Amino acid sequence: MPANNILYAQSGGVTPVINATAAAVIQAARAHPDRFGGVFAAADGIIGALEERLIDTSSLTDDDLRRLAQTPGGAFGSCRYKLKGMDQNRREYERLIEVFDAHGIGTFFYNGGNDSADTAHKIACMAAELGYPLNAIGIPKTIDNDLAVTDNCPGFGSVAKYVAVSILEASLDVMAMASSSTKVFILEVMGRHAGWIAAAGGLAQRADDDPPQIILFPEVSFDQAKFCAAVRQSVETHGYCSIVVSEGARHTDGSFLADAGTTDAFGHKQLGGVAPVVAGIVKRELGYKYHWAVSDYLQRSARHLASKTDVEHARAVGCGAVELALAGQSGVMPVIERISDDPYQWRIVSAPLDAIANHEKKMPPEFIRDDGFGITAAARRYLEPLIRGEDYPDYDAHGMPLYLRPQRVMVPPRLEPFVPA
Amino acid sequence: MPANNILYAQSGGVTPVINATAAAVIQAARAHPDRFGGVFAAADGIIGALEERLIDTSSLTDDDLRRLAQTPGGAFGSCRYKLKGMDQNRREYERLIEVFDAHGIGTFFYNGGNDSADTAHKIACMAAELGYPLNAIGIPKTIDNDLAVTDNCPGFGSVAKYVAVSILEASLDVMAMASSSTKVFILEVMGRHAGWIAAAGGLAQRADDDPPQIILFPEVSFDQAKFCAAVRQSVETHGYCSIVVSEGARHTDGSFLADAGTTDAFGHKQLGGVAPVVAGIVKRELGYKYHWAVSDYLQRSARHLASKTDVEHARAVGCGAVELALAGQSGVMPVIERISDDPYQWRIVSAPLDAIANHEKKMPPEFIRDDGFGITAAARRYLEPLIRGEDYPDYDAHGMPLYLRPQRVMVPPRLEPFVPA
Repeated sequence: MPANNILYAQSGGVTPVINATAAAVIQAARAHPDRFGGVFAAADGIIGALEERLIDTSSLTDDDLRRLAQTPGGAFGSCRYKLKGMDQNRREYERLIEVFDAHGIGTFFYNGGNDSADTAHKIACMAAELGYPLNAIGIPKTIDNDLAVTDNCPGFGSVAKYVAVSILEASLDVMAMASSSTKVFILEVMGRHAGWIAAAGGLAQRADDDPPQIILFPEVSFDQAKFCAAVRQSVETHGYCSIVVSEGARHTDGSFLADAGTTDAFGHKQLGGVAPVVAGIVKRELGYKYHWAVSDYLQRSARHLASKTDVEHARAVGCGAVELALAGQSGVMPVIERISDDPYQWRIVSAPLDAIANHEKKMPPEFIRDDGFGITAAARRYLEPLIRGEDYPDYDAHGMPLYLRPQRVMVPPRLEPFVPA
Repeated sequence: MPANNILYAQSGGVTPVINATAAAVIQAARAHPDRFGGVFAAADGIIGALEERLIDTSSLTDDDLRRLAQTPGGAFGSCRYKLKGMDQNRREYERLIEVFDAHGIGTFFYNGGNDSADTAHKIACMAAELGYPLNAIGIPKTIDNDLAVTDNCPGFGSVAKYVAVSILEASLDVMAMASSSTKVFILEVMGRHAGWIAAAGGLAQRADDDPPQIILFPEVSFDQAKFCAAVRQSVETHGYCSIVVSEGARHTDGSFLADAGTTDAFGHKQLGGVAPVVAGIVKRELGYKYHWAVSDYLQRSARHLASKTDVEHARAVGCGAVELALAGQSGVMPVIERISDDPYQWRIVSAPLDAIANHEKKMPPEFIRDDGFGITAAARRYLEPLIRGEDYPDYDAHGMPLYLRPQRVMVPPRLEPFVPA
């Protein structure tokens, strides 16, 4: 049997648009029946590949694929599982090649972030070493926007749009109530290591008077006195203060604000939430009435508010991966190259995985305003194109989105069960 | 000067669609130039009426009104301020009549909940007593859906849609990750006294296997052992557990779960959040990895995901109020009467304010499943029509909604400043 099948796997935290990439891969591969056989998806990411749990996508109709592209989450399952280095666990890499060989896999697409780029790179190396013919190709995905080389990461744009729209909407609420009720609103967003998502909240601000008045970044040490002065000034000037805080906001000593050592009445440690910690500071130091929200998974699954640009990126990297496979490339990733900000122009280019693996793209310091509480024009130029356009899912007659939960049609296993080391 | 002007005021917590009601009032009044003069809006609700801070809406163009109808929050400002009983503070009622008289107000529309219906009723009585010609009309609004007489309250349907869609989306995320990561997701929603909003989360569940697997209602005392058993069963059966919890969830003794006596490392009391309390129980008793979200103001300002039915209701009660004024009615409220569930048919009828004032509509016990963790078919029949249809705001070319922040063109005051008692 010629090794012309494709194996596609999702990795790490999912995004509102990773399934748009999956749908694009399947559709693009189907357009080349002369070059590709079946498209299989690993159930639950690389774990499913190791365990030979492969989903046959051939039963998905065109309408299914349309709906799949509109569905948040990871439709085939993802996982948090990083293969060890080849020196430490060569067996896992060998097992993957065995699975590929048993199922005629000639192309492996790994849709993930930094770690996944590293894994895809190592698999490419292992296949070459063993003389197994394989195109191992990474496909970018992460809401954290921290992948190197690519201009931005599919998934981030939609989260950015959700955060910008949500803080605008909640701020309009607070504005209406501030004269006699809540004066401070705090929205906690994701991004433990970098402030990309928090920065997106700044897109709601078009004029100096606009909310959010304060953004707390992981990149800027929290200064309580300066923060309280800024909140007070906003309330005295505008009547209210709207705040976006990154879960990664931290003290000067590097500790997270969220690690406030909070315990309940029984002495049990309470987990997380930087928003209530900031709210506590506002209440204690300033006495203002406040509200806080923690968007958590809502922000990274809000397909109902996806950015059209982001969906286009997600599809383009899926199609780009298939193109790279057709061109016989391996150890590469299709990435987004920005040609211009305005008009926003971009294209997909190929980048070597070893330039991406294990690097982390930090937010440039020039994206943060001098006072540390907002974004600069440079940040806006970079971020704004990524939230442009709306791409709504279809809804049923009962008012709910027509999200797809694909049936898992499993490929019969051909190997002995995998026993982890 | 004939008293043919209209004063419109927003009251209490705002909603995603209260401005749709405001726009409808202004548009409907403009259609009768023979009967109505100007439409003024009280700045910051009834406080602005007392203080003679009136906004002239005549400069709002048709396009402005279209955008106003798509804008969340309370565009003219709302407030939390309940007028005292007439025996305790007759002066406030007299002042309102003075303001009405000074500005030729012949129609007063008060857009709010229970308290506002009571206030509008008292104002109608006071005007009659003083012989001042006034149509005082309440207009329903509240996300809490707790108004008597009306089938449902404009504002609730959109919050219901946001909660149902959000828990579905986050559940798809958790499903994808559960095999190796987060197994339990908890979404906290509003509704301190009644579980209407929490019940809406149940609309995401179409089959027994669907999320959310557990809803915690204020109406059902929290039983930790039973809850933990249900979470465990869901994780063992489905691999994950998705939970909606009302902020009003409470222990058998009536105390709120959120009041866990939580303190930070410095002994400061931490405010609120029932979701982290439930998460703590999951972690401590079951050891599952969890995530939690608190939607707070996001849910009641999410105009980007408004229910079309809800927007239609919001506009209809605005138009209905103008019709009642044209018919010379006072001390009434236009309410929604349901004619049939399927097809969903409804109409606006007039109801006396004294039948609505100070009553609270509870959720019927037959809406909660016998196990206490979900909604019944009866609840679904009632709730589902309210989230039907989508009504998206317009967006600008930069990917943000074109929400309107109307300029406050103030009517020059004609009275001495009001000095509160």
